[in-house]
Amino acid sequence: MTRKRLIVVGGDAAGMSAASQMRRLDRDREIVVFERGPHTSYAACGIPYFVAGLIEKPDALIARTPETFRERYAIDARTLQEVTAIDVRGRTVQIEDRREGRAYAMDYDDLLIATGALPFVPDVPSIDAEGVFGVNTLESAIALRRFLENRQPRKAVVVGGGYIGLEMAEALNCHRGLSVALVERAPQVMGTLDPDMAALVGEAIRDVGITLRLGETLSAVETDDQGRVRAVVTDRGTVEADLVVLGLGVRPNTALAADAGLSLGVRGAIRVDDRMATPTEGIWTAGDCAETFHLVSRQPFHVALGTVANKMGRVAGINLAGGEARFPGVVGTAVSKICKYEVARTGLLEAEATKFGLDFTMATVKTRTRAGYYPGAGRIHVKLLAEKGTGRLLGGQIVGVEGAAKRIDVLAACLHGRMTVQNLVDMDLSYAPPFSPVWDPVQVAARALLKEV
Amino acid sequence: MTRKRLIVVGGDAAGMSAASQMRRLDRDREIVVFERGPHTSYAACGIPYFVAGLIEKPDALIARTPETFRERYAIDARTLQEVTAIDVRGRTVQIEDRREGRAYAMDYDDLLIATGALPFVPDVPSIDAEGVFGVNTLESAIALRRFLENRQPRKAVVVGGGYIGLEMAEALNCHRGLSVALVERAPQVMGTLDPDMAALVGEAIRDVGITLRLGETLSAVETDDQGRVRAVVTDRGTVEADLVVLGLGVRPNTALAADAGLSLGVRGAIRVDDRMATPTEGIWTAGDCAETFHLVSRQPFHVALGTVANKMGRVAGINLAGGEARFPGVVGTAVSKICKYEVARTGLLEAEATKFGLDFTMATVKTRTRAGYYPGAGRIHVKLLAEKGTGRLLGGQIVGVEGAAKRIDVLAACLHGRMTVQNLVDMDLSYAPPFSPVWDPVQVAARALLKEV
Repeated sequence: MTRKRLIVVGGDAAGMSAASQMRRLDRDREIVVFERGPHTSYAACGIPYFVAGLIEKPDALIARTPETFRERYAIDARTLQEVTAIDVRGRTVQIEDRREGRAYAMDYDDLLIATGALPFVPDVPSIDAEGVFGVNTLESAIALRRFLENRQPRKAVVVGGGYIGLEMAEALNCHRGLSVALVERAPQVMGTLDPDMAALVGEAIRDVGITLRLGETLSAVETDDQGRVRAVVTDRGTVEADLVVLGLGVRPNTALAADAGLSLGVRGAIRVDDRMATPTEGIWTAGDCAETFHLVSRQPFHVALGTVANKMGRVAGINLAGGEARFPGVVGTAVSKICKYEVARTGLLEAEATKFGLDFTMATVKTRTRAGYYPGAGRIHVKLLAEKGTGRLLGGQIVGVEGAAKRIDVLAACLHGRMTVQNLVDMDLSYAPPFSPVWDPVQVAARALLKEV
Repeated sequence: MTRKRLIVVGGDAAGMSAASQMRRLDRDREIVVFERGPHTSYAACGIPYFVAGLIEKPDALIARTPETFRERYAIDARTLQEVTAIDVRGRTVQIEDRREGRAYAMDYDDLLIATGALPFVPDVPSIDAEGVFGVNTLESAIALRRFLENRQPRKAVVVGGGYIGLEMAEALNCHRGLSVALVERAPQVMGTLDPDMAALVGEAIRDVGITLRLGETLSAVETDDQGRVRAVVTDRGTVEADLVVLGLGVRPNTALAADAGLSLGVRGAIRVDDRMATPTEGIWTAGDCAETFHLVSRQPFHVALGTVANKMGRVAGINLAGGEARFPGVVGTAVSKICKYEVARTGLLEAEATKFGLDFTMATVKTRTRAGYYPGAGRIHVKLLAEKGTGRLLGGQIVGVEGAAKRIDVLAACLHGRMTVQNLVDMDLSYAPPFSPVWDPVQVAARALLKEV
């Protein structure tokens, strides 16, 4: 009897979580992982902090190397190997060895697609000039950091005002001391926040000394005669720059899956059930390339986040090993830091609640992270949305200083539990002066909202 | 038609919350508050930080003065007026004016008893010596701080290893630079934690340089010939001290209520329903003197905490004004800081789960507050208890460094929602490297516990 083989396409968070989880439960299965890049299982979320210089060596971001997977987990993790095609009927994948240029095939019993996401790259002139960097892989981050240290650039433009753009702006401005301009096409930063809360983030960004250029679209990169970036051209002007960082967000990397005939859903993510099985026999998916479910809107959803990828990978691994696990979905929680400011969100925005036809109301409060008299008590803004009538909490957004953002988790827990604003007001949250006012800021917001629902 | 009168006995968190809340909803009612001390509405929880010198003036702890209540809320708040008796049938209270020594009576339509709690004072020789301080009132804190500044004591003994004892030890050791010994009768500090988690707190206390004397009972205070404290005598030795702080916890202050024939429950707290009405017509209660309900054990419970007192006061105020509000109860959440260490708990301890006949299991993990590679990632220990079979979460305890403790609120939310360990594993909690590992520490613990339930 031959051993059954699992092939994993993609050796990062979701793929390696699944592979390791499966190995823990099933010692016999052959597990082969194909990763097209040179690294496995690295913390992509740590890239801004590596670029910032807060983390010295790129190795610190690598949770486990291919050698570790081979030796400790008996997982055959192969880097620089790109899966180029899937033959669903033949249960075979085609692989291109990027080191040697040769191609080969391998058959599978189960296949897990964990191809992650691809960054948006604007289609404008000279976007590939020297001094223009993406930051979605560890390789690109290493290249950017080398550029920073060797070339000592002084003026950076970051394109994109989402999480990655803001974190890169922080890295370059607050930690590397560059003069930074942030260019964002939309009239606000952070499309994952309501405009009023995003405006607070905008203030914070300006407060730390970053130039914010909203409602401005990149039209070209300008280079000098050596082909090096010299400026960024937008529909509203020219911004000098000796470094350009693209932080425009990502989309599911699902061309391989689409070519194999798999069904795609929201944003082109691979359709999947809560066991992480696709409708195609023997094929599973997890991570940034996979669709998920939004537990508040009760609609299919997509989000590219390391924590969700890990959770999905674990569930896939358990099921692949013959166990029983489900990934019920997400509530849309995310958190970020820009210098001393913290931003967090969960659940639905106003625009989303409107889109889903919910009759909702909201309240925003401005209060303190600690007892007002305690040193270091800082500003925190909390916005909550709830359904009228039922009072069910629909979402929350937080902008503030140290200690503000992690409070979003209480709201996430409320969303998972389908709790009401009244439940939140009643909740026995922790209090001591160094940690919170007597009423936690989320409860101050809940009290304000209670009057509306 | 004469105005109906509410009399409030006790002018701190619960009493003044109730009075202000009522005033917001009812502009006509006459509200008279009798407070036996000189201050109203002050933050007793801030006392350790005032003693520490982190807060300069005692005024910073006073949320609202009697003048503010009079002028802004039309609340007749009278300080240094002690209610000495309640005539339930005649709906009258007897008051002693502590300033002038005279006694008078006043009748009420509704009476709210918010007499708070009294500190335990050990009945040992010379406990009232010069240099021995309690810290349950702002007056006592002002006296202690004056003593610290005028006398410059160098060796302090703190008696009691609960929250107040630890916070005072922090104030004197970490902020005032005194040599501090903490004497606790029990074999562990913090009776609100399981012994294994309390042992971690013990290590933390020793780590910051406080001498910990566990299993040691105070038997006397020793004085010099001027009657000043010189040492503390226990059943196991003598500890030199030129300052002694009593931090032995509190009990409900309910002698007045008992004398009036009100029914007392857990720890002698006043029995009350979830509207904060006692079984006695026209009499209400809220705060540290009132009984509450434990939502995990489903048993009557008592806890003396500012945040609970505020919540109860608000509910009492709404109901007194003819509104409709309920205080469903608590889950036993508490948090504290000792220098750089943070401690939090919610729900049931092992001993409590055993007492209530629950079939439970548990898991403890040691992990990091942030992504391992992110600067400032520190140690966090999380212990979770859950019911076998159902997997329902029963309680959690956290000991760690900065950023550790407030995570208890997610567990509190889970307890309120009667969620399971699986729910917690699935939960979409926020992640970014400065805030958390990919799996939040409470979820790392939940994953470990999942194997047990």
